[in-house]
Amino acid sequence: MLERRMSRHRPTESFLVGKIERVFGALGGRSLSRGKVAPGNRLALGIGDDAALFRPLPGSETILTCDWFLEGTHFLRDKHPADSVGWKCLARATSDIAAMGGTPRCFLLSLAIPEWATGAWLDGFLRGLRRAAQRFECVLAGGDTTRAEHILIHVAVIGEVDKRRALRRRGARAGDLLFVSGRLGEAERGWQIVRKQRGMADRRDQRLQKHLYPQPRLALAAWLARKRLATAAMDLSDGLSSDLPRLCAASGVGARIDATKLPLVVIAAPRQAETQKLPRQRDEALELALHGGDEYELLFTVPRRKELKIPPSFAGVPLLSIGEITRSRRIVVVGQNSRPQALKPGGWDPFR
Amino acid sequence: MLERRMSRHRPTESFLVGKIERVFGALGGRSLSRGKVAPGNRLALGIGDDAALFRPLPGSETILTCDWFLEGTHFLRDKHPADSVGWKCLARATSDIAAMGGTPRCFLLSLAIPEWATGAWLDGFLRGLRRAAQRFECVLAGGDTTRAEHILIHVAVIGEVDKRRALRRRGARAGDLLFVSGRLGEAERGWQIVRKQRGMADRRDQRLQKHLYPQPRLALAAWLARKRLATAAMDLSDGLSSDLPRLCAASGVGARIDATKLPLVVIAAPRQAETQKLPRQRDEALELALHGGDEYELLFTVPRRKELKIPPSFAGVPLLSIGEITRSRRIVVVGQNSRPQALKPGGWDPFR
Repeated sequence: MLERRMSRHRPTESFLVGKIERVFGALGGRSLSRGKVAPGNRLALGIGDDAALFRPLPGSETILTCDWFLEGTHFLRDKHPADSVGWKCLARATSDIAAMGGTPRCFLLSLAIPEWATGAWLDGFLRGLRRAAQRFECVLAGGDTTRAEHILIHVAVIGEVDKRRALRRRGARAGDLLFVSGRLGEAERGWQIVRKQRGMADRRDQRLQKHLYPQPRLALAAWLARKRLATAAMDLSDGLSSDLPRLCAASGVGARIDATKLPLVVIAAPRQAETQKLPRQRDEALELALHGGDEYELLFTVPRRKELKIPPSFAGVPLLSIGEITRSRRIVVVGQNSRPQALKPGGWDPFR
Repeated sequence: MLERRMSRHRPTESFLVGKIERVFGALGGRSLSRGKVAPGNRLALGIGDDAALFRPLPGSETILTCDWFLEGTHFLRDKHPADSVGWKCLARATSDIAAMGGTPRCFLLSLAIPEWATGAWLDGFLRGLRRAAQRFECVLAGGDTTRAEHILIHVAVIGEVDKRRALRRRGARAGDLLFVSGRLGEAERGWQIVRKQRGMADRRDQRLQKHLYPQPRLALAAWLARKRLATAAMDLSDGLSSDLPRLCAASGVGARIDATKLPLVVIAAPRQAETQKLPRQRDEALELALHGGDEYELLFTVPRRKELKIPPSFAGVPLLSIGEITRSRRIVVVGQNSRPQALKPGGWDPFR
């Protein structure tokens, strides 16, 4: 646990834990024991003992998920601002809670960092993490700290969902409509821009917001679960072409995507003289929508008879039907004037 | 989650997840959904969706804890057998559940490994981990896998304890007796031997068992919690001299340890001609008992009126009263013929 390695003889780690506790003081699990219970804070005991204690809501199931966030694999020290690293490591893991239709409750932060990162970098990281924790109403319950040559981050998030209401991957049936939230490819497009640019990404660049500060679709997913509108759901972390096959495999079905219905990213506003570039830009946007990873949008299936219950947008996020579930196990894309093409996984993979 | 990065285009990771699933098939969370519920297995959904679902026992609090286990910091690739790494990474985190008087339920395994480790090393690791999971009755619920240059392991364990029965650090009162389980210094002594030897530690060497395969004191701690015998408790992970001050600080008390009562390790059976070495060996054993880390024994305090309820041993593990809690906040050691000496933290610290 966070406090474990702290002692008078351990200046660096003690400093590190002290800093985390100061930043999270108002949010951390201590609040309950002091009688100031934050809404939704179900921690009976936070940082400072051997483990944290969480009080489950009667009638709920507990959702457990975790994610690595490693320097060099999931972020680059010289490209990604520290506060984006802080935000994104929690947002990513919290997106799995959304994928189940749940509500995040608390998280365990495990941090292993080199000496150089204990100053400005750590401040920025904790600032981003705290902002995400406040936004997602997810309190810090504990964790573990140690040192390492590179920055290693691990986040485990604990959430809750009403018993037997969790959105799973395996409920999709032939004929169900396939929906997606948001616009696909924006995060990947942001990453392309960051990769090409020199130095640190500009935190205010609008085109990079989804890459740097992704938003798990918590409210939408919780609403779908509560209203029993979705037969299956998952979050898009590796890209539609990698994730849709998983949902289909879990449900024992296939899918047909209508490429003309995909919510594409607008790559650039072409000048009048450059309209001949439009088709290429469309192809690029389509590629991004099909294969772009790191989106954290919600992919879900809805029985046809409930189609009209899905609004065109939810809390400002567009919802679009992009195809349907088929009995045949194939996953195909149909375009405007083209024959159906098989969809091949092309998303993000750390081992590639 | 474990399954997330798996696809046809990802041979290494898919292979890795497949291997983990095969090894944990009988133990993993799938059993419940198939109608075969293992005793204590409260998983409603395990590996293969966006997150795991855990059904909390009514009237229980959920215990959350996690630990790093990193190559170079917590274990050495050329010294520690892979199956010991597998056992110990789960034993360490599970010891925090014991420290709270709880029962382990399930765990999240996050593994980042280089290509070289996907063969024999992974097999050995999973064998040790599986053995520990069976022993502690703790099922694999999920996790995350990726690649890394060095072996990175992170384990989060979820446990349960009856509401308001958790053993905490802060309940010790002046006059309480200080107890410890087992023999102190054995793990550290094992590590000394491994360090001095060339090559891989001998898995069968009796002197190394506690260093390679530590045993969290789950049954003892759960009994203390159930019977309300302990006012405070914690596990000894960094050594008595580092951990006792934490218990005392949390309780706002001090402690006096009687060095003559410490359960010391037997360093070697001296030959008759070498009896002059005995005092030096005793000093060494005392050092190990006070400062040796990685023991995972239970340190707990008992009100004097309940002293006789503590048996001399529990499930084969000796229980010894080694001192008492004092009103003065100092932590001192008294010896056979010596004046009280202040106890200074000297346990393990990754930043030192």
